[in-house]
Amino acid sequence: MAIVLGPNRYGKAETRLVRVTRDGGVHHLKDLNVSCALSGDMTAVHLTGDNAAVLPTDTQKNTVYAFAARHGVGEIEDFALLLARHYVGTQPAVHHARVEIEEYPWDRLGDHSFVRGGGEARTCLVHHDRDGRTTVVSGLTGLVVLNSTGSEFRGFAVDEYTTLRPAAARVLATAIDARWRQEGERAAHATVRRHLLEAFAGTYSLSLQQTLYAMGERVLASCPQVCEIRLAMPNRHHFAVDLTPFGLDNDNEVFHAADRPYGLIEGTVLREDAPDAGFAWE
Amino acid sequence: MAIVLGPNRYGKAETRLVRVTRDGGVHHLKDLNVSCALSGDMTAVHLTGDNAAVLPTDTQKNTVYAFAARHGVGEIEDFALLLARHYVGTQPAVHHARVEIEEYPWDRLGDHSFVRGGGEARTCLVHHDRDGRTTVVSGLTGLVVLNSTGSEFRGFAVDEYTTLRPAAARVLATAIDARWRQEGERAAHATVRRHLLEAFAGTYSLSLQQTLYAMGERVLASCPQVCEIRLAMPNRHHFAVDLTPFGLDNDNEVFHAADRPYGLIEGTVLREDAPDAGFAWE
Amino acid sequence: MAIVLGPNRYGKAETRLVRVTRDGGVHHLKDLNVSCALSGDMTAVHLTGDNAAVLPTDTQKNTVYAFAARHGVGEIEDFALLLARHYVGTQPAVHHARVEIEEYPWDRLGDHSFVRGGGEARTCLVHHDRDGRTTVVSGLTGLVVLNSTGSEFRGFAVDEYTTLRPAAARVLATAIDARWRQEGERAAHATVRRHLLEAFAGTYSLSLQQTLYAMGERVLASCPQVCEIRLAMPNRHHFAVDLTPFGLDNDNEVFHAADRPYGLIEGTVLREDAPDAGFAWE
Amino acid sequence: MAIVLGPNRYGKAETRLVRVTRDGGVHHLKDLNVSCALSGDMTAVHLTGDNAAVLPTDTQKNTVYAFAARHGVGEIEDFALLLARHYVGTQPAVHHARVEIEEYPWDRLGDHSFVRGGGEARTCLVHHDRDGRTTVVSGLTGLVVLNSTGSEFRGFAVDEYTTLRPAAARVLATAIDARWRQEGERAAHATVRRHLLEAFAGTYSLSLQQTLYAMGERVLASCPQVCEIRLAMPNRHHFAVDLTPFGLDNDNEVFHAADRPYGLIEGTVLREDAPDAGFAWE
Repeated sequence: MAIVLGPNRYGKAETRLVRVTRDGGVHHLKDLNVSCALSGDMTAVHLTGDNAAVLPTDTQKNTVYAFAARHGVGEIEDFALLLARHYVGTQPAVHHARVEIEEYPWDRLGDHSFVRGGGEARTCLVHHDRDGRTTVVSGLTGLVVLNSTGSEFRGFAVDEYTTLRPAAARVLATAIDARWRQEGERAAHATVRRHLLEAFAGTYSLSLQQTLYAMGERVLASCPQVCEIRLAMPNRHHFAVDLTPFGLDNDNEVFHAADRPYGLIEGTVLREDAPDAGFAWE
Repeated sequence: MAIVLGPNRYGKAETRLVRVTRDGGVHHLKDLNVSCALSGDMTAVHLTGDNAAVLPTDTQKNTVYAFAARHGVGEIEDFALLLARHYVGTQPAVHHARVEIEEYPWDRLGDHSFVRGGGEARTCLVHHDRDGRTTVVSGLTGLVVLNSTGSEFRGFAVDEYTTLRPAAARVLATAIDARWRQEGERAAHATVRRHLLEAFAGTYSLSLQQTLYAMGERVLASCPQVCEIRLAMPNRHHFAVDLTPFGLDNDNEVFHAADRPYGLIEGTVLREDAPDAGFAWE
Repeated sequence: MAIVLGPNRYGKAETRLVRVTRDGGVHHLKDLNVSCALSGDMTAVHLTGDNAAVLPTDTQKNTVYAFAARHGVGEIEDFALLLARHYVGTQPAVHHARVEIEEYPWDRLGDHSFVRGGGEARTCLVHHDRDGRTTVVSGLTGLVVLNSTGSEFRGFAVDEYTTLRPAAARVLATAIDARWRQEGERAAHATVRRHLLEAFAGTYSLSLQQTLYAMGERVLASCPQVCEIRLAMPNRHHFAVDLTPFGLDNDNEVFHAADRPYGLIEGTVLREDAPDAGFAWE
Repeated sequence: MAIVLGPNRYGKAETRLVRVTRDGGVHHLKDLNVSCALSGDMTAVHLTGDNAAVLPTDTQKNTVYAFAARHGVGEIEDFALLLARHYVGTQPAVHHARVEIEEYPWDRLGDHSFVRGGGEARTCLVHHDRDGRTTVVSGLTGLVVLNSTGSEFRGFAVDEYTTLRPAAARVLATAIDARWRQEGERAAHATVRRHLLEAFAGTYSLSLQQTLYAMGERVLASCPQVCEIRLAMPNRHHFAVDLTPFGLDNDNEVFHAADRPYGLIEGTVLREDAPDAGFAWE
């Protein structure tokens, strides 16, 4: 039976763009990592090496820089859409474009001085095809949070390999990776972020799954623009150290922060009538 | 409209297991990174924090170690299947298990002495559900290869943002990430790896897409057990340095190995009659 | 000629300690990475494997946790000194202890909720020996800063391999790694950090060396407790992209943020009468 | 009291050079990471921003590439010496040059095809000053090894914080970082590497310190060119998992490979009459 080409895409990944905008003597900074991926009529290049349909990834890099100069960079979703529409609109062989952007935060030190704001990144993933279908997923990653109490874990299933004892109190720590799908209008990024943090801090947690769901539900309840949110949250275990050999109590005060293994909780919260996602998450 | 729970899973990620087996005075070593993820009847834990259906991720970690002791570790796909079937078979609330394993290679130094074999890892991704459906994807990642000639790139699409000039000869380097789906019998891992390397080295490359397809086709043509292969290959650019300011030629001898951005080529090669993948790649 | 043992040390590295302190319902958090290294009368263990003088690294880990419980964790320098004095004071074979600590910042979200404050870490390196000599080096690392103007680079030495053109304006970005030696009293960490940032932002830069010196000088001029400061600052190049092929100007607005190579500027600023550093920096 | 400039240096770090050499149709590959650092008459640039003495780091990058073209790349120590002598010999303000190189191994797949040989790197650190003093330190890093038996740890010092029990058998694993100083002639890199591996595998270990010393001693005893060797070896703990809750024995067969914390053993082995190291290790 014949061997055939299946789904494929190609592009320039991780173009590191810093865009400075001047407002008199006051400068503004956007620090992005842009990844483009194109697909379409690409059979020839795979089967025979005919590159006629291939817009080089080097050109995609140039396009990112040229568009940043010509159009500026506002919300990353808008910049991603601009790029995606450009590729599909100008290259006949390109039927579909996927643009993913990470934005790194900077805090202001002075009129033209800045300090990096941490490990967190704002993200977006945009798709656009030649039939005019467009999807927008916004997100954030690397937002590390911790509750030092207000978390328990008990009443769980037990089998012959279970040694864990129920915990009436524990540290709950995670690195939030959240992506939310929007139709039409977009929610303000800072608003979604605030709801995630408030739900994390404000939920008395019986399990990380419950906290995850509460975070997603809060975003959907508060932001009508969001129809679906996907959360991936590692359980960054903080084990209370057994200090009894040293004649000491440990009333949840001294913890070993472990690297691996870790729990990994992944879940989706969505509106019952959310439109079909199509290629939004691909 | 109601807010509901969508797809979800949870488990213990990255349990680092080293298993020693003794054959008289000669030892054998398996070095694995095991990630389990379970799903099923998990609505209650998300909505109310009722953990009755939740087999703790700590128990999953214990299970990995106990199974390694009891059953040994042979091919990672078999170990993953053993675990996946166990979870689904023993926990009523678990309807589906996903087990992903990375194996790190070691070379022998002596009867019980070993040296790590490099950055490459062998991988597998196994799914099993309570309806008895099972999928197996094998793979490798981090296999870094380079052709110092036998690669060109020209005849590509040009637009107003294109500055790249056609290259009659270039270095072609990539880190192969390959995953192949198998039905029933499995291909020998070393065989697939060998075909990938031979196709990479033996293909005169007009584009990395063409090389990718040639690699996938070679595996499918040589290994009847494989019905689909997915390849993700970054183009690790090696730019010939312009030495003319120093009165020197550079006949593709001196290169700057760049970090970012990089091209990223992703593609699938499959048999036309490959059975539906189901959840194999999730 | 005889082969002999030279300088040596051993210890437990990267013990990850999180310490929670309760102030009524309000919690406080210290998140540390503690590395201990001991040296002394260790010839026997190296030459014959006699471990009688070796306090196990596992014991050192236990000590970190037990001391955190018993004494709490205040300033990391004080915690490091406590540990160093303990090892030297209680183990006859240990003549010298070196304790290095990294502290990760958390911002408050609620009474017992926190969010990680970024990639920056506060550091200290403490030495103590059985003759009672003690040294304290405080520091910070991973403090990433950027000036979008107010930096030039010209008038540099030129040879036959120079192609760089003078820059009347450029982006200046770096990740500050600063370590400062103190005798007796210690400067407030936040004060030193503030002077570093103010000097970075406030110096019109003719070279990164000049900026580095200005930063060190500012700290010494403002903090009498500090007798020496060492700075290591990579020049994180932001190259203005050439947009002329696309008919666009680039008046220092669009930059490629490069990974490698990077400039690396290292320098010491000290008081002329600074006491001898001894083993402070080892 | 006056504030003054102390020791300083600057240069281009991590220039990634790949050099291809053709031998008819057969190609040879050198893959290097080169870091240069210059020092000398650099007071003006620090104090006033006068760059007249500063050979730009960009020029240093160019020099690396131009020298690779003109002179080829043989042993990395020779290439480093060539660069160091060039800077000191041609720039009056440069009184001292430090060149550090990492070389990454590639295995041959075909006449012009290669596969990366793993995480290990060969290293060198070379110093040269205008008084003609030259030092050469060769090395390797990231050489990960494991003995699955032939290692014990007992008879150690015990205090009130000791909970570790003596181990009659354990896994011993480490990532070797070795640097050796040579005067005049140099030992063959492969020879030193072989002795390190043989001593690791062949030593019945009572402690990692003893193994470290045995490795260093073996190199010195076998390679007269080496006068001093420094080893840094993390103890990558492999903890035998307690399987008794599951009714299983664990006769050193099933291990948890831990990330952090880890032991860190550092030691020097040298000839009693080794010449003074001077700046060799700086």
